[in-house]
Amino acid sequence: MSEPLRLGIAGLGTVGAGVVKIVRQKANLLATRTGRSIQIVAVSARNRDKDRGVRLTDFAWEDDPVALARREDVDVFVELMGGSDGPAKAATQAALDAGKDVVTANKAMLAHHGQMLAQLADEKGAVLRFEAAVAGGIPVIKALTEGLAGNEISRVMGVMNGTCNYILTRMESAGLTYGQAFAEADDLGYLEADPELDVGGIDAGHKLALLASIAFGTVVDFAGVRLEGIGKVSIDDIRQAADMGYKIKLLGVARMTGRGLEQRMAPCLVPQTSPLGQLDGGTNMVVIEGDSVGQIVMRGAGAGEGPTASAVLGDVMDIARGLRISTFGKPAVALNKAQTATVATPAPYYLRMRLLDKPGALAKVATALGDAGISINRMRQYDHTDDTAPVLIVTHKTTRDALDQAIGAMSTTGVLGSDPVALRIEEV
Amino acid sequence: MSEPLRLGIAGLGTVGAGVVKIVRQKANLLATRTGRSIQIVAVSARNRDKDRGVRLTDFAWEDDPVALARREDVDVFVELMGGSDGPAKAATQAALDAGKDVVTANKAMLAHHGQMLAQLADEKGAVLRFEAAVAGGIPVIKALTEGLAGNEISRVMGVMNGTCNYILTRMESAGLTYGQAFAEADDLGYLEADPELDVGGIDAGHKLALLASIAFGTVVDFAGVRLEGIGKVSIDDIRQAADMGYKIKLLGVARMTGRGLEQRMAPCLVPQTSPLGQLDGGTNMVVIEGDSVGQIVMRGAGAGEGPTASAVLGDVMDIARGLRISTFGKPAVALNKAQTATVATPAPYYLRMRLLDKPGALAKVATALGDAGISINRMRQYDHTDDTAPVLIVTHKTTRDALDQAIGAMSTTGVLGSDPVALRIEEV
Repeated sequence: MSEPLRLGIAGLGTVGAGVVKIVRQKANLLATRTGRSIQIVAVSARNRDKDRGVRLTDFAWEDDPVALARREDVDVFVELMGGSDGPAKAATQAALDAGKDVVTANKAMLAHHGQMLAQLADEKGAVLRFEAAVAGGIPVIKALTEGLAGNEISRVMGVMNGTCNYILTRMESAGLTYGQAFAEADDLGYLEADPELDVGGIDAGHKLALLASIAFGTVVDFAGVRLEGIGKVSIDDIRQAADMGYKIKLLGVARMTGRGLEQRMAPCLVPQTSPLGQLDGGTNMVVIEGDSVGQIVMRGAGAGEGPTASAVLGDVMDIARGLRISTFGKPAVALNKAQTATVATPAPYYLRMRLLDKPGALAKVATALGDAGISINRMRQYDHTDDTAPVLIVTHKTTRDALDQAIGAMSTTGVLGSDPVALRIEEV
Repeated sequence: MSEPLRLGIAGLGTVGAGVVKIVRQKANLLATRTGRSIQIVAVSARNRDKDRGVRLTDFAWEDDPVALARREDVDVFVELMGGSDGPAKAATQAALDAGKDVVTANKAMLAHHGQMLAQLADEKGAVLRFEAAVAGGIPVIKALTEGLAGNEISRVMGVMNGTCNYILTRMESAGLTYGQAFAEADDLGYLEADPELDVGGIDAGHKLALLASIAFGTVVDFAGVRLEGIGKVSIDDIRQAADMGYKIKLLGVARMTGRGLEQRMAPCLVPQTSPLGQLDGGTNMVVIEGDSVGQIVMRGAGAGEGPTASAVLGDVMDIARGLRISTFGKPAVALNKAQTATVATPAPYYLRMRLLDKPGALAKVATALGDAGISINRMRQYDHTDDTAPVLIVTHKTTRDALDQAIGAMSTTGVLGSDPVALRIEEV
């Protein structure tokens, strides 16, 4: 058996404590599978005295994660503090700078500084791995970087924020309003300290930017992700989308187009019968499409102590086994700076509006669509008791620009009882 | 950039030709991602003159795959001939014996000789990889061996024969009999030369035995797989299972129990709403359950040129990147010889029978179940025009032994109009 692999762990929250437990309880399993003993030598966290349900007395303690990252006796720095900048970034840089390998679960740090860190890792001959940063326990980074490495990837998609999927599922299954479902998720402790990270799509957007970098060999470009949260999704949309055979998901989509890299994180309609449409509750799903492999779907828990610790351990064990791969699947200097596609790929859209109950109203809406070159796939007007009629339209494929033009034209007709809601239907 | 990685490919059927195409067409992509140029230096196949739609004149030709495997200029022997013994085995042994790495798609060879070959690879410091042997393009071997390596696996399941899933799906969706759906699959060229490999569950059983070896750290034990094909599944079963909320799938299940390793490949009922239940047509799905990660589901194409070639390339690129892992995730000598669990884990069962239409018939059946300690979850008797009534029973969890005892008792009561059909309901 080779030399032990010595870990320094910074951050002892749920995930950090989970990693400590696994390394201790499964020492034999990990050693047999990797051929090396995996040991924790030092840890760091904000509060030394907090009871975390794990014994830490065997490990050296460092108040400063940067000092931990630089310790002579640490081979792999495991960064589980979180935060895009501050101590997490400083310590990660210090570790890489010292030529140490790094395993992190920190999507925000990588979404903002991934290119700089990947380049530093390459220069120092270190590896920087982040399976736990995307879709929790699902080994999707590995699948994309290694298992599917022989493919040109055409599209990568995912439902990667369990909290948002929980809220949307509860709105549908229990008939809750967005506010009620949000409050319920909050009570259950599902929301980040800043809930906008969840419901605004930021957290999921970070993950999408990381997947896109590997998929298309491009510099991580979180600023290029077009973000739209779930706050405007109404119970009416959920019900009426269901009536048309769709579910609403906060879906991330990245694809390389002739106009540049398209990255979107927004509520979308997907067919109820598709794997994405059938994903309820807090589960995550990632869909990868490659030219040789076709469509691969991966599903599993996107968060929580066990799943996230499982992903961290997978990375640590890869390092113990001697796997050396550049952070985003090829050398950081070889990653291209992609142009951002400002126009989304054409798609069918779902349009919901209320029309004033007067003759010719529907014709005016239909005319506005026709004038913008948009043809209608399906239209439904619902029974109503007040003076506006709910109308649903599913268009054929069109551009968002044409749609905005049509909506603008509709609003001048005087027949709208409310601003139309437009949601993209992603073909999956 | 390091030295080129030189491949020798034996077997130029659909998959072999697909690999040649990818290596040629994506030379730059593969080189950037692995840091090495990947080159084919020599090939071998039965018929040199056959037109395979790919140019082979750049490569040396070997009539004998063993000679190909031993060539000085070959670093990786890619075995795509198939067959559990014969040339495939001889050439694989020759390559490993010469210290060369091997990539294979040959499930039958590994199911029968995996332990011997893995041991040989370890002794010679060679690696033997087989992603393409299980579930086509789905990178499930990688997920199990690497990404989820920090987990104790409790169960691994899969629908891994697309042809069987196609036949069962067609029986359900088009109301075909088994014979009709079989003939249709045959016409479409979906069946192996020996169809029993597909419909008898043998091919899928090979795959299950390989997954079980990695999952539980045990010597591959194909003989320990309890095999049951789909030939006895009737359209009545499919319809009546659907009526109870289930679908019938040829499902492989492996789990480690207190009584030893349980490996089953048999038609099972799974809930319609589960990912396995929603898997239609020729697609494959593998479900992995680990103590930390929970349940991971992977779905994709299980066969075909592109998906299989994608898996072969993934393995080749791993080797190019320097990944060295023992065949089944730990050294072959450390794999345990598992005892075979002769008794399956208790489960609910689905029972279908026809009862003679006379007073007390149902009571006799219910008594036989009760006497065997089996309680009934749901029972349905259907309307009927002939003199026997179709009856469906879903039991609570019970053992197969108790069920067989009950069925034996029923058959002595004189109320059965047909032999009862019993299918396990796998909880997923």
